[in-house]
Amino acid sequence: MGHPLRDVSGPARLADPREGISHAELALAARNHGMPLEALRYEVTPPGLHYVLTHYDIPSTAEAGWELHVGGRVRHPLVLGPADLRERPAVTRRVTMECAGNGRALLTPRPVSQPWLLEAVGTADWTGVELRDLLADAGVADSGVEVVCTGADHGVERGVEQDYRRSLPVDVALGEDAGVLVAYAMNGSPLPPQHGYPLRLVVPGWYGMAHVKWLREVTVVDEPYTGFQQQVAYRLRQDADDVGEPVTRIAPRALLVPPGFPDFMSRTRVVRAGRITLEGRAWSGHAPVSAVVISTDDGASWTPAELEAAPADGSARWAWRRWRATWTAAPGRHVLVPRATDAAGNTQPLRQPWNRGGFANNLVQRQPVVCVPDGDG
Amino acid sequence: MGHPLRDVSGPARLADPREGISHAELALAARNHGMPLEALRYEVTPPGLHYVLTHYDIPSTAEAGWELHVGGRVRHPLVLGPADLRERPAVTRRVTMECAGNGRALLTPRPVSQPWLLEAVGTADWTGVELRDLLADAGVADSGVEVVCTGADHGVERGVEQDYRRSLPVDVALGEDAGVLVAYAMNGSPLPPQHGYPLRLVVPGWYGMAHVKWLREVTVVDEPYTGFQQQVAYRLRQDADDVGEPVTRIAPRALLVPPGFPDFMSRTRVVRAGRITLEGRAWSGHAPVSAVVISTDDGASWTPAELEAAPADGSARWAWRRWRATWTAAPGRHVLVPRATDAAGNTQPLRQPWNRGGFANNLVQRQPVVCVPDGDG
Repeated sequence: MGHPLRDVSGPARLADPREGISHAELALAARNHGMPLEALRYEVTPPGLHYVLTHYDIPSTAEAGWELHVGGRVRHPLVLGPADLRERPAVTRRVTMECAGNGRALLTPRPVSQPWLLEAVGTADWTGVELRDLLADAGVADSGVEVVCTGADHGVERGVEQDYRRSLPVDVALGEDAGVLVAYAMNGSPLPPQHGYPLRLVVPGWYGMAHVKWLREVTVVDEPYTGFQQQVAYRLRQDADDVGEPVTRIAPRALLVPPGFPDFMSRTRVVRAGRITLEGRAWSGHAPVSAVVISTDDGASWTPAELEAAPADGSARWAWRRWRATWTAAPGRHVLVPRATDAAGNTQPLRQPWNRGGFANNLVQRQPVVCVPDGDG
Repeated sequence: MGHPLRDVSGPARLADPREGISHAELALAARNHGMPLEALRYEVTPPGLHYVLTHYDIPSTAEAGWELHVGGRVRHPLVLGPADLRERPAVTRRVTMECAGNGRALLTPRPVSQPWLLEAVGTADWTGVELRDLLADAGVADSGVEVVCTGADHGVERGVEQDYRRSLPVDVALGEDAGVLVAYAMNGSPLPPQHGYPLRLVVPGWYGMAHVKWLREVTVVDEPYTGFQQQVAYRLRQDADDVGEPVTRIAPRALLVPPGFPDFMSRTRVVRAGRITLEGRAWSGHAPVSAVVISTDDGASWTPAELEAAPADGSARWAWRRWRATWTAAPGRHVLVPRATDAAGNTQPLRQPWNRGGFANNLVQRQPVVCVPDGDG
């Protein structure tokens, strides 16, 4: 199916620096949604506040008749329904998920796509079965190098008609480090339609594009998968003709619960002068967060924040960690900047890490605040 | 608290016709979210897909210690907690709720505010107690003319620091027609934080601004309330100095489940040639929807759609109704337009009903579709 579909897709492009958000970007922003940053106060994001990004439509799915096919380069292909999965040992992991495009609309120039600011994140308790257990039952052939996962959402992207489909290296799919799940529950309830009902992949530590929703097929292949979402989208490129590196794990980030109260339209924050507890969450898909520092003077000086300990049982290994700091706010304008570093030595850049797709932009958050005298309240 | 806060708010303004969506509008679009239109397939909108508009922040609320004060011009002021309300007779109503600003970003010129396209709608089963029963217990004084409802969300709007607060005429609050609820549950579960946990008002048939969330106070007053959300915002004005009419009930609207499948970026819909069932939902806050017609040629000709009967028990009196029509799609480009009419004779305009706030824009939906030959699939 050639020309008619190329005709419905425009080419990838960068916005002119003076160009506002386009109608098409707004259409994506109205459909998909971020997590309002005050919801950083919750360790587990309540239903409906977790970010959602749907490439095409949320498909009409039912558990009855749903089949997950595990096949390709395996010795014993499997066909499993959600009920079959629930009969297997259940595993629950607390995972912070972030869209690879989070921060895109803050870039200059701005890649034209889903225009996220900083809200494309959320944390949930995902329950399901270990992908590696399913693959062990199926028996991965020695020739297997990647596992291709296919969802039921169907659409067109840059002229290519497709079901959403992504691959994982076999060592990630089989590895114990991430602990990839085929999940059927979110926060103890069946997956909501927009989060992949009845089955989805959860790839702890990886950006959202890897967590294939409405999962129908897991196919072991003997050469690297070169489909659209792997080879065209989700690569870090400086120029359109770069091959680019694939987008994989989540870069470290700290975000702040916006202090005080907002102006409706400008979203400027207002605080009253005095001692204020600043708090937020920080995460990294490379290694545990080891430190958060905060600046209240737009990066001129930094103070360590107190980092909450992670649970010792490792169940929240890939979940965000809470941090807190105290600030004595004086009347005037201030810019608050939190900054996370992980145990592998990755930290957030102070200048934008630009690429053509607008992926993995973990530039530090800059939160302007207006402090008013306490007596005015 | 004067100047410091006026300084954080810009004036109300209209966008220049060539101006894209601004960063501030995008910040609202990233926080608040619409219902992806494919979710029109659900009679009751699943959790997380119902539209949400929060003026300020989602407040941090808990049921423990929550008090609803019913007072003002009443004989017996009441203080009730959520548990007290659950001991009273429970009433469940299926209600379609729509933001008064739905359709705003489609207007020319565009009022600068939350930039909704068409997705700011959803339907839920709300459970709670009748407001009129609470007011009967409290005993409304003969001098009472309005009931002022106050939420816990706090912020600034055009320089005015405020808790979100709106009034209803006493005859609406006490009337049997709308059946105003103080709700503690949505679709059988406690209210999610973003929908007003632990208590909210539900005013069937009225635009969303009336359904005060995080409800703390219901105060009977003896003269019309003139606060910001009543007298400044939510009025239909042609000029900035008009007094304007208040925004009240939902104007009729029909929306279409987008047929076929989308292009990721342009959101253009693709269908294959042949017979297609078109379906959607239609609603009105003035009277039951009595007819939906559909055009597949951008309004040149119209065909009646089949309208599903409403439940005879009246429990869905203020909920949308499903409609269906059959279309034989031929290759090429088409524009689909559904149009609803209600039993009071209100119908959707074919030209934009413009006002400075961008409220109640129920202009018909125009859905472009590209039809490709069936054999290409």
